[in-house]
Amino acid sequence: MNNRTKYIILFFTIVWANSAFAQKDYSADFKKVKLVFNIDNNGTPGYQVFYGSNNIIKTSALGFKLVDNKALDKDFVITSVDNSSFDETWKPVLGEVSKIRNQYKQMIVHLKQNTTGYLLDIVFRVFEDGVGFRYEFPKQNDLKYFIVADELTQFNLSGDHKAFWIPGDYDSNEYEYTESKISEVNNKAIFESSTDICVRTVRDFTSVQTPLMLKTGDGLYINIHEAALINYPAMQLHVDNNSYQLSASLVPDAVGNKAYLKTPFHTPWRTIIVSDKAADILASKMILNLNEPSVIKNTSWIKPMKFVGVWWEMQTGKGSWSYANNADSTNAKGQLLPSGKHSANTANVKRYIDFAAANNIQGVLVEGWNTGWEDWFGTWKENVFDFVTPYPDFNVRELQKYAAKKGVQMIMHNETGSSATSYDREMDTAFKFMKRFGYNSVKTGYVGKIVPRGEFHDGQWMINHYLRTAKKAAEYQVMIDIHEAVRPTGLNRMYPNWVASEAGRGNEYFAFSHGNPVNHETILPFTRFMGGPMDYTPGIFKLSNYSKDPTRKLRSTLCKQLALYVTLYSPLQMAADLPENYAAYKDAFKFISDVPADWDDTKIIGAEPGDYIAIARKGKGTNNWFIGAITGENSRDINVDLSFLDKNKKYAAVIYADAPGTDWEHNQEGYEIKKMNLTSTSLLKLHLGKGGGAAVSIIQL
Amino acid sequence: MNNRTKYIILFFTIVWANSAFAQKDYSADFKKVKLVFNIDNNGTPGYQVFYGSNNIIKTSALGFKLVDNKALDKDFVITSVDNSSFDETWKPVLGEVSKIRNQYKQMIVHLKQNTTGYLLDIVFRVFEDGVGFRYEFPKQNDLKYFIVADELTQFNLSGDHKAFWIPGDYDSNEYEYTESKISEVNNKAIFESSTDICVRTVRDFTSVQTPLMLKTGDGLYINIHEAALINYPAMQLHVDNNSYQLSASLVPDAVGNKAYLKTPFHTPWRTIIVSDKAADILASKMILNLNEPSVIKNTSWIKPMKFVGVWWEMQTGKGSWSYANNADSTNAKGQLLPSGKHSANTANVKRYIDFAAANNIQGVLVEGWNTGWEDWFGTWKENVFDFVTPYPDFNVRELQKYAAKKGVQMIMHNETGSSATSYDREMDTAFKFMKRFGYNSVKTGYVGKIVPRGEFHDGQWMINHYLRTAKKAAEYQVMIDIHEAVRPTGLNRMYPNWVASEAGRGNEYFAFSHGNPVNHETILPFTRFMGGPMDYTPGIFKLSNYSKDPTRKLRSTLCKQLALYVTLYSPLQMAADLPENYAAYKDAFKFISDVPADWDDTKIIGAEPGDYIAIARKGKGTNNWFIGAITGENSRDINVDLSFLDKNKKYAAVIYADAPGTDWEHNQEGYEIKKMNLTSTSLLKLHLGKGGGAAVSIIQL
Repeated sequence: MNNRTKYIILFFTIVWANSAFAQKDYSADFKKVKLVFNIDNNGTPGYQVFYGSNNIIKTSALGFKLVDNKALDKDFVITSVDNSSFDETWKPVLGEVSKIRNQYKQMIVHLKQNTTGYLLDIVFRVFEDGVGFRYEFPKQNDLKYFIVADELTQFNLSGDHKAFWIPGDYDSNEYEYTESKISEVNNKAIFESSTDICVRTVRDFTSVQTPLMLKTGDGLYINIHEAALINYPAMQLHVDNNSYQLSASLVPDAVGNKAYLKTPFHTPWRTIIVSDKAADILASKMILNLNEPSVIKNTSWIKPMKFVGVWWEMQTGKGSWSYANNADSTNAKGQLLPSGKHSANTANVKRYIDFAAANNIQGVLVEGWNTGWEDWFGTWKENVFDFVTPYPDFNVRELQKYAAKKGVQMIMHNETGSSATSYDREMDTAFKFMKRFGYNSVKTGYVGKIVPRGEFHDGQWMINHYLRTAKKAAEYQVMIDIHEAVRPTGLNRMYPNWVASEAGRGNEYFAFSHGNPVNHETILPFTRFMGGPMDYTPGIFKLSNYSKDPTRKLRSTLCKQLALYVTLYSPLQMAADLPENYAAYKDAFKFISDVPADWDDTKIIGAEPGDYIAIARKGKGTNNWFIGAITGENSRDINVDLSFLDKNKKYAAVIYADAPGTDWEHNQEGYEIKKMNLTSTSLLKLHLGKGGGAAVSIIQL
Repeated sequence: MNNRTKYIILFFTIVWANSAFAQKDYSADFKKVKLVFNIDNNGTPGYQVFYGSNNIIKTSALGFKLVDNKALDKDFVITSVDNSSFDETWKPVLGEVSKIRNQYKQMIVHLKQNTTGYLLDIVFRVFEDGVGFRYEFPKQNDLKYFIVADELTQFNLSGDHKAFWIPGDYDSNEYEYTESKISEVNNKAIFESSTDICVRTVRDFTSVQTPLMLKTGDGLYINIHEAALINYPAMQLHVDNNSYQLSASLVPDAVGNKAYLKTPFHTPWRTIIVSDKAADILASKMILNLNEPSVIKNTSWIKPMKFVGVWWEMQTGKGSWSYANNADSTNAKGQLLPSGKHSANTANVKRYIDFAAANNIQGVLVEGWNTGWEDWFGTWKENVFDFVTPYPDFNVRELQKYAAKKGVQMIMHNETGSSATSYDREMDTAFKFMKRFGYNSVKTGYVGKIVPRGEFHDGQWMINHYLRTAKKAAEYQVMIDIHEAVRPTGLNRMYPNWVASEAGRGNEYFAFSHGNPVNHETILPFTRFMGGPMDYTPGIFKLSNYSKDPTRKLRSTLCKQLALYVTLYSPLQMAADLPENYAAYKDAFKFISDVPADWDDTKIIGAEPGDYIAIARKGKGTNNWFIGAITGENSRDINVDLSFLDKNKKYAAVIYADAPGTDWEHNQEGYEIKKMNLTSTSLLKLHLGKGGGAAVSIIQL
């Protein structure tokens, strides 16, 4: 790893000959963050986290229940403690910044359970911006294969914090965020009223998904999530409304078990990011740092990409994924009869390729190109799509040639209908097809109930499936964007070809439902995006009257849609609207043409979850900056300190801002474009209407 | 299908304009067998079966419960009835006879449920030797996808018959048969005491597997099973000890559902074979006839085969599947350290190849050739074997060349550890490996709990998996022998490369347990073999002192082991003992060398389940006959009427019979070999000791 500079300093190791003792505290700290570990009188391991003088996580138990009534919850003694320090700087393949410093103090507590002799290590890493810890089961004679019944990790909060949460659903993250006190967390009504996607499974009405964003009464910001989720189920949090205790709740498998493991094994990292500034939460690289370096040696084929797609026209009902009206619509030979609404036809796709080529858009996604869309949904069947058979009006070879001539990349679409077993069987065939026809990336999807039946989207089996898919994609040098999967945990460091995921409630909900709250995108970076890029599909310009349902409209202004290209980081970033809708606003679309999808640097100008986010980013390999600012229900004026610009350079700025009187309810598509020259000492003022936004391109002269 | 002669005669179709009626009986009959259908006052469909004047199945309900509280159990009316007749003769690719006549009367009852409008057809086929019926769901607008919660088929017996049964286990058929009255069927004690294989799942203590063999107080023989089990779970039978009602009990999936279906769909056939002669049950071809013709066009590569194997030496503990003593037995480089007991080494395999080549044995199976056997068992892990990596002492290429030079076929072994998902993913790789190294057949295995976790060996998902495997094997022109799978249902007609299955309690139980009852092999042909060939692994010559446990011994004489090559039909037939044990009895082994594994004709000389079986078969493409006779706990003299021999021909016979004083408890390996010339008018007397047998080769001069 020639691009990493690494410093490891081993501080000290304490080993006791007689390990039968307890009560003593062991701690590690980094600036204001302090981690304290101890074992109580029952031999139960526990930890606390402090931020300055604030005990943000009160003594919280650690441990496991295993299948067969074994419990790793007490009778532990410390056999030794290792302390060390680590400092490296590494370069992400794709990212918000070009270099990431990974600096922490590490404390490994080696435990032994007296009653069983089982060994268990708990590894803490204390960063400037929080704490990560994980369990490690060393290789040992008495514990080889084991099945986790429950993980007993607690996060005992110090008070009734404000929380930004979605239900602890085993199958979905596609929810609106609720802002409530911890004491008020209850997802029952939300779960029961959310019928607009096809699979939801909530069994615990006070469970929430991570990343969970919290704000204390003292103004501290706390984010709880996990990093490097591999061969283990996703962790949700069970909320005790009275004690403010959060406890790990692992997504079960088909028979109710949580994880099938073999020593040596380590769990994902449990992460607690903390700051007194909301912006620091967004700037944190702790989750990436807790992941392993890239296992892909040659990453030259992994590239950021903006793309358009034959997609929104189906979402909004203008066209259809399917070729025929239904599976029974056939001629005497059994061939499907075209409905005339099939969007993924060669001529229409060429229109998107032309648009991409003319507008600095690198890719074109086409959904509905392959047979099966007449009959794929909601039946829990196993063999849904074959991933290689195009509809008669979609000419793969012709489009490959056409796109290549225009310098545009075609993006493959593999919807599995959640039949993961079937996709596993067909995957090599699917990837060979991609390589044969020049596709360098694929969007996969998992709509519906999982096969293997009884498994959930976020259980260990599916976690392994997603990673298997990403690895297989890497073998074929294909980038992957997984939809309806588990929310990310920074694995894009280790598998940089896994460029994005959905795993959240995207812009698409405005097409087929009542949509997203006006402050939705001000919460997402503090929650869903903490784990990694999301394919949110921003850039809708026609903000109302796009659907047959006239009540549907985006809770956004046009400029907010532009700003999302900066505030929502994804190296695979869609311009989601139709070419004809962009044609109506060519001057505004210029920002999307200009904006990069990957960055050398990022400055969080200001942020408050639920209220607003303003971010400046420096385009990869350039000296150009782009600013995005969005606001929730309140209009807002933001003053941008431009001191991040080079002191001696001049810049030409284009400011795309909500026009006077424009907000998400009025004159949504109103904007003003101003051009001016700027330097690092200029003062830039941006006005955002309610639910509005502003975008700025700052090109070095 | 140029080898089929087919006659279809449409008798009459009755259609009613007004379908609101009931009570009338509709019947079809063939010689002594009569089927009667009616609908009761609740609109519940029902059937009866008569054999002559015996009402062997009293009025029994038909129907389904579907998920979502839909019930197809009443409110039905008959919309029409179609009667027809069918007669064809077809040639099996491999079989007990060269031609099979398929002659039946068919009655299709078209039903409509008044409350829902759902259409359901019940198709009855009445043969000379019994009745088959299945449910057919026509394509219909109101019922497309549906999930079966329960099949409601009943078989109401006319009395407290004697039954030969094994527990209704979702995962295994490897049980000893119990002979009891229907009123006494209870599998709890058997299930709870059967701990010698690694997965058993019994949830209903009066459930039994099919084929279920029954004998009435009047001396009628009744066999209940199913034919053509495709895309549906196996049917077990719930026994009501008081009413003698048997009811279909389908093996569930991971979430408790039974089958995910789409119209048009038809279930497997439910089969009731009946006769007043036990021999007729064994001679019945009804189950094969209810299966579809071969879907494999070119079957020239499908051939019968006797084989020896590197197998019994591991079963008996002389050698091991694994290369090292355990997975932790490694050197500093992490390489496994050989235990010195690994049987699948190149030199040892060559010994088997030499033996096969010298003794008219076509194949050599080698288990334990591939890495992973140190750590494969009982942990419910998913990725167990990779199917392509040999141990360091097994030279695939060298053995391929050596076997080819000797004219011997190597047989592949793919143990999945029941991780069917993993095998699905690796299957192409595995079959490509076989073709690359000249393997034309594979033995697969499913030891342990199934992955997908929560699925059972006999549920719909695994039924589909086995067939997927057989189809994939056919694509590669590979014959397949599936172990620990569902018991067969005649699918070897449709997929003739699926040459054998285990799915029963084979000879191997004598190696690693207390073994099988002395009458076990006299029951198997009436039960397990009704559905198709079993890889029973006969031919053990060293009948005691083969195991470290001196109490283990086969409940057999040596001659009974010879006789099994005739009484147990399998076109893939093992000579299971070690070459050195055969070398001790070269003259007796001559029978195994001579006996074919496939036949042109079969005569059941006499049979009684639990007591004895005597069968004569004519070798494929020859005029030579082979006789096998075995007996249970009683010694027996059998007079063989040789009138099946050609009238004008002379034959040289070799008779292998238990020596005087030989039975399974005394002088087990004692035998006498007599040679004589025979004609069709000769009288052949065979003496069988207790648990003994006799084998005869009759070669045309």
